[in-house]
Amino acid sequence: MNKVAILGAGFMGSAMAWPLSDRGYDVRLVGTHLDQEIIASCRRKNWHPKLERPLPTGAKAYPIEELPQALEGVELIIQGVSSAGVRWAAERLTPYLDSRVPVLAITKGLALDQAGSLQVLPDYFNSLLPNEIRGRIPLAAIGGPCIAGELAGRRNTCVVFASRDEILLRRLTSLLQKDYYHVWISTDLLGVEVCTALKNAFVLGIALSMGILEAAGGPDAAQAHMHNLAAALFAEAAHEMEKVVLAAGGDRRSVCSLPGVGDMYVTAQGGRTIRLGSLLGRGVPIAEALHQLEGVTLESVETLRVMHKALPVLERAGKVRTDEVPLLWHLCQIVAEGATVDIPWDRFFSGSQQARR
Amino acid sequence: MNKVAILGAGFMGSAMAWPLSDRGYDVRLVGTHLDQEIIASCRRKNWHPKLERPLPTGAKAYPIEELPQALEGVELIIQGVSSAGVRWAAERLTPYLDSRVPVLAITKGLALDQAGSLQVLPDYFNSLLPNEIRGRIPLAAIGGPCIAGELAGRRNTCVVFASRDEILLRRLTSLLQKDYYHVWISTDLLGVEVCTALKNAFVLGIALSMGILEAAGGPDAAQAHMHNLAAALFAEAAHEMEKVVLAAGGDRRSVCSLPGVGDMYVTAQGGRTIRLGSLLGRGVPIAEALHQLEGVTLESVETLRVMHKALPVLERAGKVRTDEVPLLWHLCQIVAEGATVDIPWDRFFSGSQQARR
Repeated sequence: MNKVAILGAGFMGSAMAWPLSDRGYDVRLVGTHLDQEIIASCRRKNWHPKLERPLPTGAKAYPIEELPQALEGVELIIQGVSSAGVRWAAERLTPYLDSRVPVLAITKGLALDQAGSLQVLPDYFNSLLPNEIRGRIPLAAIGGPCIAGELAGRRNTCVVFASRDEILLRRLTSLLQKDYYHVWISTDLLGVEVCTALKNAFVLGIALSMGILEAAGGPDAAQAHMHNLAAALFAEAAHEMEKVVLAAGGDRRSVCSLPGVGDMYVTAQGGRTIRLGSLLGRGVPIAEALHQLEGVTLESVETLRVMHKALPVLERAGKVRTDEVPLLWHLCQIVAEGATVDIPWDRFFSGSQQARR
Repeated sequence: MNKVAILGAGFMGSAMAWPLSDRGYDVRLVGTHLDQEIIASCRRKNWHPKLERPLPTGAKAYPIEELPQALEGVELIIQGVSSAGVRWAAERLTPYLDSRVPVLAITKGLALDQAGSLQVLPDYFNSLLPNEIRGRIPLAAIGGPCIAGELAGRRNTCVVFASRDEILLRRLTSLLQKDYYHVWISTDLLGVEVCTALKNAFVLGIALSMGILEAAGGPDAAQAHMHNLAAALFAEAAHEMEKVVLAAGGDRRSVCSLPGVGDMYVTAQGGRTIRLGSLLGRGVPIAEALHQLEGVTLESVETLRVMHKALPVLERAGKVRTDEVPLLWHLCQIVAEGATVDIPWDRFFSGSQQARR
């Protein structure tokens, strides 16, 4: 039986066990040091506490100490740690990497290279590898709307595998595609990865509307909410996402599809970033809001911290001006500078026509 | 005091009374023969039964019989009937139209011209005018995400005024813009209007996911819904919307902005089209589903009936193939041919790469 390892037993890493197991693989789910309770529960009770179901037949849980055994003879490695853990993952995996074994990443985020420029995570991961293997490991990443619990529930899910290597993409698709796990491929690695990271950041912006509604006393007597505001933020987010994708050297077509608006749509359905955005929209300062959500990994915040540094670099390089992405820049300022929420209406939809008020 | 008339006292026509009244206009809200109860309630009880609030100060309700008085001396006419009523509205308004008085339409839909080609409603309206004034009335339309009840609640709302005449657009914006009613302008009349109509049609597709979930027994024990499916449909909708906009001669930039994804996002928050889509997704045949929603105007259904005729014409003209818009064509077949719901996954994201299964 062919073997696959997943490093990281959080929501998304673990959920990948379902299509893989249903495709007949021997799946080794390896928890990080942060996943000890999850792995213990899977082993002792055959119960994944985050996904609230038993692991599928054919999948086994491994603690990080057993990483060498788990990686033995695998034909694919799924890299499923959070963006903060990519360096750690590269270090742990390095001794076992092989140019014949692809690494498919589900991490969503962005990094900065040594010059302070924006870097997508597969390139960052590659840059962390030792000389002997750098550039020789087949790397790809997954984008598109995928709530882990739905994938584990075998609900229809459409994703995009992205890499610069189309042959690798076709090979990965043939390994993973399943009747409920629909895979498209894209050689626009930069565009897909920028969308995948930015959607978290922008959903924080969309969620501001929920906090603003709460601060205004909630729905009025006729049940008027603030969906118009949320939708305007969604539209501005899509508009700005295209600008950043182009600035980063990506293809705009990744935006108006699964990695951009599709993933942003599903992310806006709920979750941790929505809770943070609601708090901020209510007027809670960022430090206090993060304190209330303590212990929770927020890729949106990490991405905004990266963009707070990357946007001025992109501006100096003539790629995109901060005043062309006023929502994103405002979110950067809220997260990195503690700025007060103040929707910059007048600068929205830059490049569109607007009469002066 | 400057005067403005609104023809049509449904949700959206009536809601326009708020920004207009707040801008200081004498607003005359004229009900159609379908709005008699609304007008009676506004007059007798100062209560708009659909918007569940009194009309704003400065707005008065008129029955259709008083249309001539209501139109006397107005500097702007808001055309707020449903798409099925555009011919009626053109006939009723014709005697009072004046080349100095713009008609700003909020109707969402599409028409077919005499050759069977797709026609946006402002052009259709113009085509219905008598020779003497055809082409001489300043016509514009509104796109973008706007739930009427929220506009009436003075919630922040971002819209796009569209016309081929930029000077008209700047004039209209200066007449209507308000601190909570943010107006952008676009000379891409075709693109904005196609987005505005298609978003209703596509939201019917997104809503199928809700019915499919119900038919599958609802969320599972771990609370897995079908948001991934809804998001994939949203992404495919955006992808296809771009293809139809381009085929119709519009600008793709209207899609990834307020008229396209923004309006689609807000429309997916609930309402009548969502109810119909849920029924269809559960497997209820279209005739039975429409019967259950009897008496309700469904622009989504009207638009799909138009597209069922228009798409083959566009295909023959080499503008877009039905297999490039598989979701839209499937929705057309469900509505116009009674086809059974069967998501055409394999044809999604045409033009993107996908490995064969």
